[in-house]
Amino acid sequence: MSTLILLRHGRSDWNEKNLFTGWVDVDLIDKGREEAVRGGRLIKESGLLPDVVHTSVLRRAITTANLALDAADRHWIPVRRDWRLNERHYGALQGLDKAATRDKYGDEQFMLWRRSFDTPPPAIEPDDEYAQTDDPRYADLPEVPRTECLKDVIARLMPYWEGPIREDLAAGRTVLVTAHGNSLRALVKHLDGISDEDIAGLNIPTGMPLVYDLGEDFMPTRPAEYLDPEAAAAEAAAVANQGR
Amino acid sequence: MSTLILLRHGRSDWNEKNLFTGWVDVDLIDKGREEAVRGGRLIKESGLLPDVVHTSVLRRAITTANLALDAADRHWIPVRRDWRLNERHYGALQGLDKAATRDKYGDEQFMLWRRSFDTPPPAIEPDDEYAQTDDPRYADLPEVPRTECLKDVIARLMPYWEGPIREDLAAGRTVLVTAHGNSLRALVKHLDGISDEDIAGLNIPTGMPLVYDLGEDFMPTRPAEYLDPEAAAAEAAAVANQGR
Repeated sequence: MSTLILLRHGRSDWNEKNLFTGWVDVDLIDKGREEAVRGGRLIKESGLLPDVVHTSVLRRAITTANLALDAADRHWIPVRRDWRLNERHYGALQGLDKAATRDKYGDEQFMLWRRSFDTPPPAIEPDDEYAQTDDPRYADLPEVPRTECLKDVIARLMPYWEGPIREDLAAGRTVLVTAHGNSLRALVKHLDGISDEDIAGLNIPTGMPLVYDLGEDFMPTRPAEYLDPEAAAAEAAAVANQGR
Repeated sequence: MSTLILLRHGRSDWNEKNLFTGWVDVDLIDKGREEAVRGGRLIKESGLLPDVVHTSVLRRAITTANLALDAADRHWIPVRRDWRLNERHYGALQGLDKAATRDKYGDEQFMLWRRSFDTPPPAIEPDDEYAQTDDPRYADLPEVPRTECLKDVIARLMPYWEGPIREDLAAGRTVLVTAHGNSLRALVKHLDGISDEDIAGLNIPTGMPLVYDLGEDFMPTRPAEYLDPEAAAAEAAAVANQGR
């Protein structure tokens, strides 16, 4: 038996501006920092004691983890980071306004790009200002992604789940994973056995710790629970309305 | 050839209140956060690119590293933490007012406790509110320190220098070490070959990155330099006057 806590980063600058973000390394806004602190306090109040934290290599998840762990008095635990926990790469949409994109391409195409399981947006050009072509943090990758659908996210996330995260869980550690809407949806899809179709309807609220009790097979022994279920439901509804 | 950057955490709540801190896990004050950000900006402006950061397990060093790396756009690098980088344990003095301690015990005893190489302050009682008796971050230690002199700090720091830090340096990584006045003095004593007597006169300013170029023997190939030498000299003088 081990415990897994998922925490989606709080509101970022580009959430606020309603822009597609993906791998662009934007900062949290103050509200996002408050969400992170609130998430950390909920973890502390719950009595859960994260033994290790895994984050993406993007600032908004890293800062969320830093602030949440500080608020939970667990700032001193080991930290592991990996690009495999990054947000979905949004391709050529990165940097575009969500509402304008919806107006330009129509509801159907917009929702396909946002929620289709296996249709990625058009690839970003390598010389686009919002591409990650020469970003040193991806220097070890054979190729930096230029777009991703959720299926692609699952494909690059699962080796990290099956490797470093499960190693920590197997050692009996309580694991905090601080990441993004789509990398966490990919993980929840696996853990909750959600179909390729139904995952489109799943929204994960920001700053709300989601707790899994896992068995020896690293699968849930009971349904996952948000530490503040009421607030989580309200937040999930707000996420679903993005771009409207 | 490799590069080592030392960064002492910024002003903490207890620096401000002029209390002996040691292993008590106090927070930075706003000025300390600003110092950390400034330190990070200096690193960025210098063109140095830390590949890995080592911190103590104390909040003031961890937060300093988080803020400095964020300001340097290196927030995504691997993080390693170890209690061996902690501040000197100040024993029964932890939580006491520095000026009052000086008044009570006199200049000589005060300076002996602050600067003696091998005379530790009296040991803290295990049930003292400022002891770390049941602190989970030290659960793996055979025994939690109850007081330390600088010699003790060197003894517990050197295995970490010779192990994890030198491993990173040997791999060609630029290493940032974010720690404390006395753990950094211990390291500088080794690197600069300072005698047990002369180390008493060395003060390391807060928030000022100190850069070493190291040879294959992990010793300096030229004198270390502060990234902002003028500000560093002024800060060192201020530290020397603490408790006056």
